[in-house]
Amino acid sequence: MSGVLFILGMGPGDPELVTLKAARILGAVPVVAFFAKRGQSGHARRAAEGLLASGVEELRFDYPFTTEVPPDHPDYAAAISVFYDEAAAQIGVHLAAGRDVALLCEGDAFLYGSAMYVFDRLGGRHPCEIVAGVTGMAGAWSAARRPIAQGDDVLTVIPGLLDETQLVRHFSGSDAVVIMKVGRNLGKIRAALALAGRADDAVYVERATMAGERVLALAAVGDGPAPYFSIVLVPGRRGAR
Amino acid sequence: MSGVLFILGMGPGDPELVTLKAARILGAVPVVAFFAKRGQSGHARRAAEGLLASGVEELRFDYPFTTEVPPDHPDYAAAISVFYDEAAAQIGVHLAAGRDVALLCEGDAFLYGSAMYVFDRLGGRHPCEIVAGVTGMAGAWSAARRPIAQGDDVLTVIPGLLDETQLVRHFSGSDAVVIMKVGRNLGKIRAALALAGRADDAVYVERATMAGERVLALAAVGDGPAPYFSIVLVPGRRGAR
Repeated sequence: MSGVLFILGMGPGDPELVTLKAARILGAVPVVAFFAKRGQSGHARRAAEGLLASGVEELRFDYPFTTEVPPDHPDYAAAISVFYDEAAAQIGVHLAAGRDVALLCEGDAFLYGSAMYVFDRLGGRHPCEIVAGVTGMAGAWSAARRPIAQGDDVLTVIPGLLDETQLVRHFSGSDAVVIMKVGRNLGKIRAALALAGRADDAVYVERATMAGERVLALAAVGDGPAPYFSIVLVPGRRGAR
Repeated sequence: MSGVLFILGMGPGDPELVTLKAARILGAVPVVAFFAKRGQSGHARRAAEGLLASGVEELRFDYPFTTEVPPDHPDYAAAISVFYDEAAAQIGVHLAAGRDVALLCEGDAFLYGSAMYVFDRLGGRHPCEIVAGVTGMAGAWSAARRPIAQGDDVLTVIPGLLDETQLVRHFSGSDAVVIMKVGRNLGKIRAALALAGRADDAVYVERATMAGERVLALAAVGDGPAPYFSIVLVPGRRGAR
């Protein structure tokens, strides 16, 4: 009989922002799996510290790239697909042997998370439960103390990888904006926000809910590359109550 | 010395989707406050069941409207503003007396939540901590087992209250779409999705993570009014890996 694959959203970083359900499952499974950048401990794994059963087996999958390769590059697509195939195969061995596996995911697993590629490969063949988590963006607007959207506000979540024209179009057409994956795109994002007339209220949040958390007006941030986990917020709420 | 106002995201409904941090705070505060519809127990309050300290004082605030009055109606704006003033005043009495208060919020407090209006009124006068929660939409796409966005997908979160022209524009301009506050707007939403060519992949989710949860293709849902807490999802992910 197959083990169950639990896909666990582990929240934005603060280990206390793990859900009671994820904590209960983590204390019971014999195997945990997670993705991490080479040489780093992994945010999701760190959030699980202290919650794991003794003797748990850990499957760590190091991303094949340590810097951002554009996802539309052919080398990226080929390498990442093989990488997810192999991760799914290793997890599948445990499931087939009847062992439950918890896959640890930063934020919420199904919002820009690597776990969806494992789910694509295993979800049809093994029992699978998805446990929603606190997103990185909710961690960011809570840390910034800025309510993001109210009433009939439209909120648009935009990867910073998009080109300037696309960014301007989305910034202009939405009440509230969250820009993910800021990284090296900070200068471009700032320029696009200015073109859309939305720069004045933009807030920059780095390492939300973690040690070293920083919240600044975007205007106060330099143009150098930002950490990958930084987020830019433009709250909606035109007219409070 | 003032008490602390803790604004707690209580998650999408399943009491196990409360965070460890919210659970810890709930076990310690002498006062909890929450909003609810008249005659209902309130999702956020239900999620707190079993987590409260004995002898806790409860402040319940019944919304002045039991059905959806359009937020742009003058009667609505006037009544709701007085309502939040009074709720904030009652909470403020406890804070001024040095008692910590936890304000319980469905989903995440700062995404379309009533708590932001209390924060507007008290956040500058009393110490206040915002604890991010699992959003209703993350509960919905997890329940539907549909990863919502990947890579450079743009995700747009849209209240169903908007008019059809606005809905079509947003549906056409985004990779992934989450439509909140479906309620009586189901027929209009369905028509707008068809006009934007996005109806085929739309998923309807009702009472995500709660008793009575339903997940259906939107095409399989009748046109009668849906519960207020239903959500329509159109996943992005054009081209998996």
